[in-house]
Amino acid sequence: MQEIYFDILFENATILTMVDDAPVVTGDVGVKAGEITLVGPAPKGAAAGRRIDAKGCILMPGLINAHAHTAMCLLRGYADDYPLQTWLFEKVFPAEGRLDQRAILAGALLGFAEQLCTGTTSISDMYYFQPAVAQLALEAGIRANLCNGVVALSPDWSMEKDRGIQETLALARDFQGAGGGRIRAEAAIHAEYTSGPRVWAQVLELAQAHGLGIQLHLSETEKEHQEAKARHGGKTAARAFYEAGVFDQRITAAHCVWLEPEDMALLAEKGVSAVHCPVSNLKLGSGICDVPALQRAGVNVALGTDGCCSNNTHDLFEEIKLAALLAKGKNLDPSLLPAYAALKMATVNGARAQGRAHLGQIAPGMEADIILLDMDHPTTRPNLDPFGAVVYSATGRSVKLTMVQGRILYENGVFTTIDLEKAYAEAERYALPLVLGGKA
Amino acid sequence: MQEIYFDILFENATILTMVDDAPVVTGDVGVKAGEITLVGPAPKGAAAGRRIDAKGCILMPGLINAHAHTAMCLLRGYADDYPLQTWLFEKVFPAEGRLDQRAILAGALLGFAEQLCTGTTSISDMYYFQPAVAQLALEAGIRANLCNGVVALSPDWSMEKDRGIQETLALARDFQGAGGGRIRAEAAIHAEYTSGPRVWAQVLELAQAHGLGIQLHLSETEKEHQEAKARHGGKTAARAFYEAGVFDQRITAAHCVWLEPEDMALLAEKGVSAVHCPVSNLKLGSGICDVPALQRAGVNVALGTDGCCSNNTHDLFEEIKLAALLAKGKNLDPSLLPAYAALKMATVNGARAQGRAHLGQIAPGMEADIILLDMDHPTTRPNLDPFGAVVYSATGRSVKLTMVQGRILYENGVFTTIDLEKAYAEAERYALPLVLGGKA
Repeated sequence: MQEIYFDILFENATILTMVDDAPVVTGDVGVKAGEITLVGPAPKGAAAGRRIDAKGCILMPGLINAHAHTAMCLLRGYADDYPLQTWLFEKVFPAEGRLDQRAILAGALLGFAEQLCTGTTSISDMYYFQPAVAQLALEAGIRANLCNGVVALSPDWSMEKDRGIQETLALARDFQGAGGGRIRAEAAIHAEYTSGPRVWAQVLELAQAHGLGIQLHLSETEKEHQEAKARHGGKTAARAFYEAGVFDQRITAAHCVWLEPEDMALLAEKGVSAVHCPVSNLKLGSGICDVPALQRAGVNVALGTDGCCSNNTHDLFEEIKLAALLAKGKNLDPSLLPAYAALKMATVNGARAQGRAHLGQIAPGMEADIILLDMDHPTTRPNLDPFGAVVYSATGRSVKLTMVQGRILYENGVFTTIDLEKAYAEAERYALPLVLGGKA
Repeated sequence: MQEIYFDILFENATILTMVDDAPVVTGDVGVKAGEITLVGPAPKGAAAGRRIDAKGCILMPGLINAHAHTAMCLLRGYADDYPLQTWLFEKVFPAEGRLDQRAILAGALLGFAEQLCTGTTSISDMYYFQPAVAQLALEAGIRANLCNGVVALSPDWSMEKDRGIQETLALARDFQGAGGGRIRAEAAIHAEYTSGPRVWAQVLELAQAHGLGIQLHLSETEKEHQEAKARHGGKTAARAFYEAGVFDQRITAAHCVWLEPEDMALLAEKGVSAVHCPVSNLKLGSGICDVPALQRAGVNVALGTDGCCSNNTHDLFEEIKLAALLAKGKNLDPSLLPAYAALKMATVNGARAQGRAHLGQIAPGMEADIILLDMDHPTTRPNLDPFGAVVYSATGRSVKLTMVQGRILYENGVFTTIDLEKAYAEAERYALPLVLGGKA
């Protein structure tokens, strides 16, 4: 009889599997070679490299942040409470323009640390210097779909000169599937309002040639949404993308605050994933995405933090709770988006947005991206429902352990792949002076 | 030359004074005999019973939770995502009806613990068995304005038989000003829809006779708001209370989601404090209180968590952030309710709601209700603005020390007046079976 072995065996946890048939079970979870190989009682005599007592803890899939600009944690607190145009054109864009690769890497590393310690294990990230960020993610152990959004406002734009395109090509060439599939290259159209159909066609061709999903921003603000219609003869941005064939690729569309019912139908038809970023949408005064309407239309809706300059954290638990709250509060119906459905947005739906079939659930054969929540705290104990506990009472600070692909990256305040003090020092001494307009 | 002495001296903090002239200063805060006696650099040679190095920390006034039902943390997760009528009449009221004094005390103690460790130092609380809860608060060291809301739906209602009235009298007699002013008795009309003008007149007379403020719920839901108008010949609940003279006392009016412009003017005229409970209002599908409109009308707006069954935490930092976010998101204007104004709601405005002139600011002569936030965490570091940091990035989990009236009640995970394990055991073994319908 062959010995049953696990690299790591979590014992006696309350397991939120996110599998509809049995969404919550009590027992053990075994991990081997980066995969979940057991859910339920461990067989007698099973051996394990390490046993972790998870009694009183909730074990669940790592969260998936389906829309982020991770390195923007450098700009946290840099531009709070400004009108949107001032925020973007007088604060964010100039500051970002001053950031070099070293500064972006400093921000990305701290952003990875923040996301890991608050339970996020996989990120869809749109930002700059992404091949270097891919290498960083590879080393940090986090999972990421990385892209650099094409902005093509100049009439003499060309693929050859476009930084986003060139980074996409480098990502596809050097990092596609790296780290046993952890790193994925994606293409990106920053947004309808920062490019046009000629550019979309070229990005689409590139994405098709390399088999890449595409990330984009869609109908975030009312102004943007109305101006798109003016530009495209009454067609919305979603309709324009649809007709250009963009939606034929796997699409992750961030925000979707101002989508019209017809837009929702287009997204559903094409399997486009919408990413709800409730904190950012409120903080920038963009509005409230109608998640229940999107879901009724059949759209897959995931969750994102957006950048830390409009949030100002990467704690995805905030987005989960706020998504559930806003669905109810906006529609005056407390039964909308119940806890389990809200949690699915940050797990199962996020995995679907990322095109990752083996992520977002605790089940044999799934990637071992696992978080453990310590519920033994006055904010979470007592609690009469585990899903309610996670959605309405827990925060990222409840996370005591974060595992990606079977590897523990964070446990009880300690990172195993990131030197946090060094990361703070690099961000504060090198990068922040650039944000603030000084010289490196 | 007389020696300068402090019981406790906090050194090298970033101090959010919440005093408009100098809202943020760096330096020391000295505490003596329950009062703040120094803000700024400590004089050379000053002696201190204890020096606390607050370098890298934010020191600020303890938060004021201006509307809570503290013991309801027993019902956390008991009734998530239900339609409002089911939630209230089939879940909450029956469960509350099963709770005896011992169970309520178990819940109150855990609720105090949760609030203390997440930075709340003073509570306006409406619930049951309040004289016993007052004794508990006295021993736990927390500050509280306590009341039991009168519900008078029966035609043979009388003051003599009303539990709320009898508890109010006992509070006023035995606990008014206890603990050096920490405990205050207040009267309470549960809401317009649970009583009528005859009852209000008697509560008012009682409040006037004993010099009590009055807590009440006001226009929380649209249904309640419209039904009040139907009952009072077109007059809103606010107008009805106003005309009955209720608003001539110091009033703390929770929710105020559906107030009309005329109502806001009445509140402003009478100095009524509105308490915004954004999480609860969203979670129960009640709607979004228009805080900027209330403030423009001149109304003092404080913040509350409401009960844990509709929240599900007592972490007031969530309410601060959500208040700032909703003001912007509802009105599509990111400049509304900036960080400093949002933080005032939970400090200065809360103190005004509670009728406490010496609370809510860090300044000489103020009560020493102080919290210390550890910002050395990836969710809060780096951060380029201290108010933005507290409002948009910190949570209750950032709190490392909580002091009330000069006494440290919580520090680095440890409570000085509450045996947490014993409190959990009492709540889980004695009280939860009652919540769930079993026998004690």
